[in-house]
Amino acid sequence: MRILLINPNTSFAMTERMITSARANLAPDVELIAITAEEGVPYIASRAEALVAGTTTLELIARHQHGMDAVVIAAFGDPGLIAARELFDLPITAMAEAAMLTACMLGPRFSIITFSHALTAWYEDAVALAGLQPRCASIRVPRAAFRSVHDVQHELEDDLAALACRAVEEDKADVVLLAGAPLTGLAARIAARVPVPLVDPLDAAIGQATLLARLRTRPAQAGRFARPGAKTAVGLTPALAAWIEHRNEAAGMPAPHARQEAN
Amino acid sequence: MRILLINPNTSFAMTERMITSARANLAPDVELIAITAEEGVPYIASRAEALVAGTTTLELIARHQHGMDAVVIAAFGDPGLIAARELFDLPITAMAEAAMLTACMLGPRFSIITFSHALTAWYEDAVALAGLQPRCASIRVPRAAFRSVHDVQHELEDDLAALACRAVEEDKADVVLLAGAPLTGLAARIAARVPVPLVDPLDAAIGQATLLARLRTRPAQAGRFARPGAKTAVGLTPALAAWIEHRNEAAGMPAPHARQEAN
Amino acid sequence: MRILLINPNTSFAMTERMITSARANLAPDVELIAITAEEGVPYIASRAEALVAGTTTLELIARHQHGMDAVVIAAFGDPGLIAARELFDLPITAMAEAAMLTACMLGPRFSIITFSHALTAWYEDAVALAGLQPRCASIRVPRAAFRSVHDVQHELEDDLAALACRAVEEDKADVVLLAGAPLTGLAARIAARVPVPLVDPLDAAIGQATLLARLRTRPAQAGRFARPGAKTAVGLTPALAAWIEHRNEAAGMPAPHARQEAN
Amino acid sequence: MRILLINPNTSFAMTERMITSARANLAPDVELIAITAEEGVPYIASRAEALVAGTTTLELIARHQHGMDAVVIAAFGDPGLIAARELFDLPITAMAEAAMLTACMLGPRFSIITFSHALTAWYEDAVALAGLQPRCASIRVPRAAFRSVHDVQHELEDDLAALACRAVEEDKADVVLLAGAPLTGLAARIAARVPVPLVDPLDAAIGQATLLARLRTRPAQAGRFARPGAKTAVGLTPALAAWIEHRNEAAGMPAPHARQEAN
Amino acid sequence: MRILLINPNTSFAMTERMITSARANLAPDVELIAITAEEGVPYIASRAEALVAGTTTLELIARHQHGMDAVVIAAFGDPGLIAARELFDLPITAMAEAAMLTACMLGPRFSIITFSHALTAWYEDAVALAGLQPRCASIRVPRAAFRSVHDVQHELEDDLAALACRAVEEDKADVVLLAGAPLTGLAARIAARVPVPLVDPLDAAIGQATLLARLRTRPAQAGRFARPGAKTAVGLTPALAAWIEHRNEAAGMPAPHARQEAN
Amino acid sequence: MRILLINPNTSFAMTERMITSARANLAPDVELIAITAEEGVPYIASRAEALVAGTTTLELIARHQHGMDAVVIAAFGDPGLIAARELFDLPITAMAEAAMLTACMLGPRFSIITFSHALTAWYEDAVALAGLQPRCASIRVPRAAFRSVHDVQHELEDDLAALACRAVEEDKADVVLLAGAPLTGLAARIAARVPVPLVDPLDAAIGQATLLARLRTRPAQAGRFARPGAKTAVGLTPALAAWIEHRNEAAGMPAPHARQEAN
Repeated sequence: MRILLINPNTSFAMTERMITSARANLAPDVELIAITAEEGVPYIASRAEALVAGTTTLELIARHQHGMDAVVIAAFGDPGLIAARELFDLPITAMAEAAMLTACMLGPRFSIITFSHALTAWYEDAVALAGLQPRCASIRVPRAAFRSVHDVQHELEDDLAALACRAVEEDKADVVLLAGAPLTGLAARIAARVPVPLVDPLDAAIGQATLLARLRTRPAQAGRFARPGAKTAVGLTPALAAWIEHRNEAAGMPAPHARQEAN
Repeated sequence: MRILLINPNTSFAMTERMITSARANLAPDVELIAITAEEGVPYIASRAEALVAGTTTLELIARHQHGMDAVVIAAFGDPGLIAARELFDLPITAMAEAAMLTACMLGPRFSIITFSHALTAWYEDAVALAGLQPRCASIRVPRAAFRSVHDVQHELEDDLAALACRAVEEDKADVVLLAGAPLTGLAARIAARVPVPLVDPLDAAIGQATLLARLRTRPAQAGRFARPGAKTAVGLTPALAAWIEHRNEAAGMPAPHARQEAN
Repeated sequence: MRILLINPNTSFAMTERMITSARANLAPDVELIAITAEEGVPYIASRAEALVAGTTTLELIARHQHGMDAVVIAAFGDPGLIAARELFDLPITAMAEAAMLTACMLGPRFSIITFSHALTAWYEDAVALAGLQPRCASIRVPRAAFRSVHDVQHELEDDLAALACRAVEEDKADVVLLAGAPLTGLAARIAARVPVPLVDPLDAAIGQATLLARLRTRPAQAGRFARPGAKTAVGLTPALAAWIEHRNEAAGMPAPHARQEAN
Repeated sequence: MRILLINPNTSFAMTERMITSARANLAPDVELIAITAEEGVPYIASRAEALVAGTTTLELIARHQHGMDAVVIAAFGDPGLIAARELFDLPITAMAEAAMLTACMLGPRFSIITFSHALTAWYEDAVALAGLQPRCASIRVPRAAFRSVHDVQHELEDDLAALACRAVEEDKADVVLLAGAPLTGLAARIAARVPVPLVDPLDAAIGQATLLARLRTRPAQAGRFARPGAKTAVGLTPALAAWIEHRNEAAGMPAPHARQEAN
Repeated sequence: MRILLINPNTSFAMTERMITSARANLAPDVELIAITAEEGVPYIASRAEALVAGTTTLELIARHQHGMDAVVIAAFGDPGLIAARELFDLPITAMAEAAMLTACMLGPRFSIITFSHALTAWYEDAVALAGLQPRCASIRVPRAAFRSVHDVQHELEDDLAALACRAVEEDKADVVLLAGAPLTGLAARIAARVPVPLVDPLDAAIGQATLLARLRTRPAQAGRFARPGAKTAVGLTPALAAWIEHRNEAAGMPAPHARQEAN
Repeated sequence: MRILLINPNTSFAMTERMITSARANLAPDVELIAITAEEGVPYIASRAEALVAGTTTLELIARHQHGMDAVVIAAFGDPGLIAARELFDLPITAMAEAAMLTACMLGPRFSIITFSHALTAWYEDAVALAGLQPRCASIRVPRAAFRSVHDVQHELEDDLAALACRAVEEDKADVVLLAGAPLTGLAARIAARVPVPLVDPLDAAIGQATLLARLRTRPAQAGRFARPGAKTAVGLTPALAAWIEHRNEAAGMPAPHARQEAN
């Protein structure tokens, strides 16, 4: 099983770290293929940046989906997730949604712990998009500043662990999500210090993508995620334009998957 | 008062029609400046197209905001609205949100009548984004197909009027929104045939933008719509990159507005 | 365009101040006609007083609606708003609803700042009536007491500005409404001290009434705001009884407006 | 135990019928004292009429509360209920709220069956006010017209019974409320024809008032139903003005009740 | 009228106290018959214990329902309530639901005060089951520990009274429920110290059961509470098995009630 | 990885079929251990039966959890799920919750198709328990009756496929869940006939259990799923009593798992 991991941030180092961390919890038959965005910002931290990154995500999926069984959008906040599910036919997950749905099986209410106030409005939108506000106990950020996004999980390790405990004590969280790609891998390190389950969103997103691929459900041909009809588009990258214009089929290019309907 | 109207579709003819229609209900002191997207699709009809159009909308606002008092995003579905409000400092409205908020003053529940099934999932998202699902009685589409987006409001005029009446009778709608930029101007023509108020979303969006500009509220410097800090971005258009990188200020370029805080 | 402003409080001085304040933000073609209640209480501060004021509001609209294009109920809490919309055929707005809907375009969540604890239960009802609880971050009142409703906006100016800042900081408000007719005009004075947009509810209500009048929508002849059939009533004022009994039409009295359906 | 039943409609015949019907299910120690409104309309059927009737209800409670243990507002739609609870110190129930809360113990979802389309918007408001929309399966009205409000329960008996059955079958109602004072007594007559429990709202309202009086809870001195402070009012009836101005206490008039706090 | 009170805890002393306390507020024509569980735990304090107690409750109702007019499940948390309503044909109430519905008539928002943190998750579930989260201001527990469940209402009397006051002041509660069978009777003792009405859940549950029995509604033969068809069951107590297998009717045993449909 | 599959129905044949069906989609490193209830009913179809089955489920987990990595409750409706999560320390999933959460990644709204009207109230409760009502488009049952629960998926195959299509067309479902253990395996067979993804709840539940086990999160020691303290219980099976009384630890019996906290 091949899973395409899209990092919509332009940081290749972050992609490396995510791959390394994810490999610890993979099913034995899963192979990860990781792609890093070449346009956008090094670390998405606003809704405007997320909007731009959403378009980039669509372009990267269009270019790399062939031969894949599922896609993971590797940014908490899930840029482009709904549009990608509508546009493409293979299963797609993303870090915020997957972490929240997974948390729903570990406790009635979850808190989201992250490292920068700039992120919270975007994360609130992700909670709302999933319709899970009633299960979100809080979104919390440490008071301490950090120097580097790349090292933030080490710089603020004690602050983040303490904040997770406060979310349990004060906000009545039953599960804690450590949110934002830069915190990938932190959960395993601080688990013993927090009295409730911690969810690593990347593990959750890859796990859910694996699960969906294993279900081999057919792509929607009706409903809100049915692929839109062919349409002429101006100014897009070639792969995305070809997919939107349905030119892959016309050219005899194989569909990127053959799943449940072929059973 | 100068209001910038952004048409995120690439159809110049549609922009022309919108301007013509809007002028009938303008306040005497309002001037409209209209811009048409040069990249994207002629008519947005999916969430993927809306996502791409959202980025285009940000780029157009960045390029044309100087000297404007407010912005109207002239597509029902509101591509880029939240991101634009976060990123820019002047008041911004869009057709779906403005029409729905306006409808809330005309009746407890509204129905949205549009012309293509492809649009309904996107419009549902717009209702949800505004938190107004409890007030949305239905989203309805005529069974009849149409030949041209440009003429659809004439081709389907009778179907749309009849459907509005059915929304009142069967879905208990108290107000009807005629949704989608291609229906601009239809409300005035069929009002006598529908027993409840009809809202023209473009009129609503321009009216609300006018109202916000007249309030002269200050831009947010805190909260979810505070402008993000400067950030390096790769692969964006010059105006949007400059605004995201805060280079306008550095270059001594004036802020594009001087409102409430200057009172 | 003529807009009827009803002050359901019996304070003529407050009406004067509202007119003066409102004129600063009016569209150039709008004329305000203000009426002060002669029965009731000087300042409505309970649900019982609001109920009584609602009946008074209906009576005043019945008496003064002729020749008007829209009505503004100039009390935050909106006494009689829903009943008035059902009963009368011209557009009607009120301060709480208009301020909240306007705030929805300026930020995801608003706080309501007012000056007396007695008012909060009534204001909560107004938020609930509009279905906007999910967007209301808080309703806050300063601890300090005040001597005079008429001077309260000056007496408590510093407290109210500080409280608005706390609503932003602690309650995560993105917009602040300064609620209650006695605070009319305060927003402009303290805007520079609060880091998010402030909404003056009277400006919002007049702006929205102007917008609705400009849309020239037809009155509802079906749905929840269709005018009730003629009915005999005992013990009401002459104008309200005549309107409820549909005697104006019988007597050849012209309908008070001729809007969208006449286009 | 003495329970004051206020009929806010001006129909004395309806009051008589309600008293007769209610006596069948009273606890042995309960005495009903019934009062009919002298101002207003013979049968409330709009939100405007309900607003006016709410003020009348406050006046009647003020005049007749002395010596009573609880009050029942005997109109489905509950005119003045919240204002009355805030203003007065004895327990108050009303037909819509009491019927709905009672129905919540008889089945997960209830339908409301009534006899006139004019009533449905008002009843929807009552459902919303109680926060019970998720439990309301439908509000239904027979297609057949009726000649007399006084005889409607006989004229439409078959239609109403059939409609109750359809609410069970089509709307998945588990309980049916027969709504509107003119239907008082119908439940017992058609119970054998409907396969789910029927609630008679008057029985429910009197039963709940009896229950509250038996609990002997103290009146609120804090919170949303604490009695407002004394205030000067103009143009009200003497009893209501005296109560609002707290003149009963000043004059040495006894408080109308002595309940839990005296235990 | 005979009301069966089921104590699903195995504490006979608690049953005794409940009976004694309840008699103070009974209608004159009501007789209470109390049964104590013989299997389970002395005091239910977790969802697992509540689940087990739910089965016990069904067994006790099956064994003792004959000749009863209604049933009260005398544990706050309401073990087995929904299942019992579906399975049996007579009216059934329970302490949490009855107290909350009763509180809805005494104030817009209630707080639940109890004595052990172990109980709060279970009580939250009860609030959610009733769909009343929007009306629940808080669930509060004193910090102080207690020695004996049987004496906890005396041990913590001052703490509980103080906490009720804090719920009013800090959580804006308008009514306070003193939750958990061990607090039965406390409301009357501390009422004078708390400025809002206090609800004793046992009084509420018995009062509501009395009310339902007095309404003499028919049992559901359709909908979500219709009795399931006969079914073979293994491993249940004889009375419950007989009822589930519909063997009582087969054996000529009379149905346990003859209510509304016999009118 | 060892996953314990509990069938709370007393049908061994159904357990066999579930095991056979599930093996098709297992990860290569997962071993299933299946247990069938010995007490209860052959097929749970009411809330009363589900309550009894919940207790049985707790007993079976207590007896068989040793050496397991996760538990699957193999009945749609999820008897005992919340209680089991609170009581035990290893990850637990169940068919309804897992299918719904999985469906949330495949489409905005799901419909539940099942085979008997008796099941729908129970399934509604499962939707509500998960807080997913806004995403549930409908619960549908074919009109046709069936002879045998064991063969129902073959008897009604055409009806169920047609109903799934109607849920897409009429209820706007984007995903369909085939609910009830007797339908296990049907999804693969009818996928080509339904234009949206079909979810097999057993595959989803096993997949989610696998995912949770792979995350190796620690058991909650705080919050709503923390294991209750030791307590004396009467009348339970030995394994459940021992676990509730914390006698396993006292006896030196090893904890049944060693997960995240041991990393």
